[in-house]
Amino acid sequence: MLAEDLDTPFLMLDLDGLEDNLDRYQRYFDQHGIGLRPHIKTHKCLAVAHMQMSRGAIGITCQKLGEAEVMVAGGVDGDVLIPFNIIGKQKLDRLMSLTRIARRVTVAVDSEYTARGLSEAAKAAEAELGVIIELGMGGRCGVETAAGAAELAAVVDSLPGVELRGIMAMPSPPGSRPFFQETLALMDKSGLPHPIVSGGSTPGAFEAHEIPELTEYRAGEYPVGGAKHLQNGTHTLAQCALRVVMTVVSRPTETRAILDGGSKSLSACTMDADGRSIMGHIVEYPAANFNGASEEHGHVDVSACAAKPKIGGRVQVLPVHPCPTVNEHDEIVAVRQGRVEAIWPVHARGRIR
Amino acid sequence: MLAEDLDTPFLMLDLDGLEDNLDRYQRYFDQHGIGLRPHIKTHKCLAVAHMQMSRGAIGITCQKLGEAEVMVAGGVDGDVLIPFNIIGKQKLDRLMSLTRIARRVTVAVDSEYTARGLSEAAKAAEAELGVIIELGMGGRCGVETAAGAAELAAVVDSLPGVELRGIMAMPSPPGSRPFFQETLALMDKSGLPHPIVSGGSTPGAFEAHEIPELTEYRAGEYPVGGAKHLQNGTHTLAQCALRVVMTVVSRPTETRAILDGGSKSLSACTMDADGRSIMGHIVEYPAANFNGASEEHGHVDVSACAAKPKIGGRVQVLPVHPCPTVNEHDEIVAVRQGRVEAIWPVHARGRIR
Repeated sequence: MLAEDLDTPFLMLDLDGLEDNLDRYQRYFDQHGIGLRPHIKTHKCLAVAHMQMSRGAIGITCQKLGEAEVMVAGGVDGDVLIPFNIIGKQKLDRLMSLTRIARRVTVAVDSEYTARGLSEAAKAAEAELGVIIELGMGGRCGVETAAGAAELAAVVDSLPGVELRGIMAMPSPPGSRPFFQETLALMDKSGLPHPIVSGGSTPGAFEAHEIPELTEYRAGEYPVGGAKHLQNGTHTLAQCALRVVMTVVSRPTETRAILDGGSKSLSACTMDADGRSIMGHIVEYPAANFNGASEEHGHVDVSACAAKPKIGGRVQVLPVHPCPTVNEHDEIVAVRQGRVEAIWPVHARGRIR
Repeated sequence: MLAEDLDTPFLMLDLDGLEDNLDRYQRYFDQHGIGLRPHIKTHKCLAVAHMQMSRGAIGITCQKLGEAEVMVAGGVDGDVLIPFNIIGKQKLDRLMSLTRIARRVTVAVDSEYTARGLSEAAKAAEAELGVIIELGMGGRCGVETAAGAAELAAVVDSLPGVELRGIMAMPSPPGSRPFFQETLALMDKSGLPHPIVSGGSTPGAFEAHEIPELTEYRAGEYPVGGAKHLQNGTHTLAQCALRVVMTVVSRPTETRAILDGGSKSLSACTMDADGRSIMGHIVEYPAANFNGASEEHGHVDVSACAAKPKIGGRVQVLPVHPCPTVNEHDEIVAVRQGRVEAIWPVHARGRIR
């Protein structure tokens, strides 16, 4: 079956590009002796997770417990890190079940509240559960001072049922090294263990070695890239392997083309490109400006395109942010040189709990 | 079962608010003698569609063929309008099948290309298919002049297999009345039929009567509202019936709260509120600023809140745009006064083709 025989819109993953990315990132982390722990939230797909593990990943990262449940049930034999504050009886019960079927489970905390909940649940369930402290990089979760992080680490270390395993941060740019160092020094002073020192985010992945303290690294988007990765230069066009294939359904004016995919195919994410807010990059019309979308319509300004798209023509669109794009789809069409090699379910789609 | 017993995040629909909205919009359209043709793209749910039909809706609007297939298979006995240019053999084949099982099917076109494709397919299948011309309001699809629209109407009228049924526009503010009038006058001059004159969009719904030419109206968001509807005053807080229930999982600083739902629970849509870009409105903390989200984290500035949220506490978040929010979820939890009355599948979720 050829990709061109499939009806649009659909989510296409180019296998050559995917494998190139899997290889080159794994190679980088191998060279620097840092464990790669892929974040499966990007692809949400067992097939890709298994490819990552078979190339040498040390385990996986899942943003939600539900994603971890899907991956473990699907035979992804890595140990699992969930860098999320897991709170409440229902999730704690599920987490305890996960510790019994997964090889090794570690979760992140940034408060005593979360840590005590984990401890009580793990003690009652006689579970083996690792905990790392999240350092706050501003804007999201995490303890925002080294002293505070070391203090929370001491609390975790003192609690029954849980094992202190180290620290993490998201993201972890080279400039955050002093924060890592200070926290680790304080932990060392108190004799607190930190076998895991975890950095993360795809955009800064190739700078991971600038923080030699890192033992492992979480990256999600690297297998597939996207419009932002093309812009940042971490991925060539061929390495931007995830594309939404769409059809031009309307050419209402000389300068406007409408595609049959909008936010329900791409997600509503936008990015800045040359001072414009765009929703995707059109491979066949790089000068086109994908400047808006309704749910089922992509709105494209084609005034800068020398040759203009025609109704019925097809285009490949690089999403701004691949993770939410994948979450809009039930299936990924895996393609090599235009031939469909597989249609993979997006196994962990919608696992928000 | 109580809603508070369910784990977060989850999508909650308050039935009192829903029914209030269904009643008051139906009443308005009944009073003005305009047919209400609800757009099911907002809720994507058979239960709500059936409630709309039982209150007097004349049929349904579906943005994609796949949504129409789900609704018709689910026994929604309305006639179906798909205001989308349907192109390509696969979709045309499916459309012909739909005409055989649905009571009445009408689709919109804005080009001869689309019209001729429909005609050929309908003629070959001996199907009964209605076609309306989309007037362009700028920004999306549609023929942007009355002369062009009337010309396309004449082409459709001349084609075998399809029946010209009128015109539509999206949106249809009162200021667009002259465009409607001019097009209809030109069509009348040529003896072209227009039993359907269709306006649309929830924000302008209560102005529909200002275009007396309208025979019917498409509205999607009115049953559930959202943060934008609260801002615009079309819905009270109680009438904003769709909420994502989330838990506070982190309080990293005095001014920041992190929720366990982000763009994967709400969608990545943003709106402007007092010059700030927000991703949702928090019912319990109206002074909070939901200023950002990652996929699984909601980022909230609580500096303006007198009482601050605590870790483990729950909040209800009004989405900016309900339609993409619903599309992130597999289920809608239908609640009345805190009690779960039903858990409805989002039947047409992800139907992008």
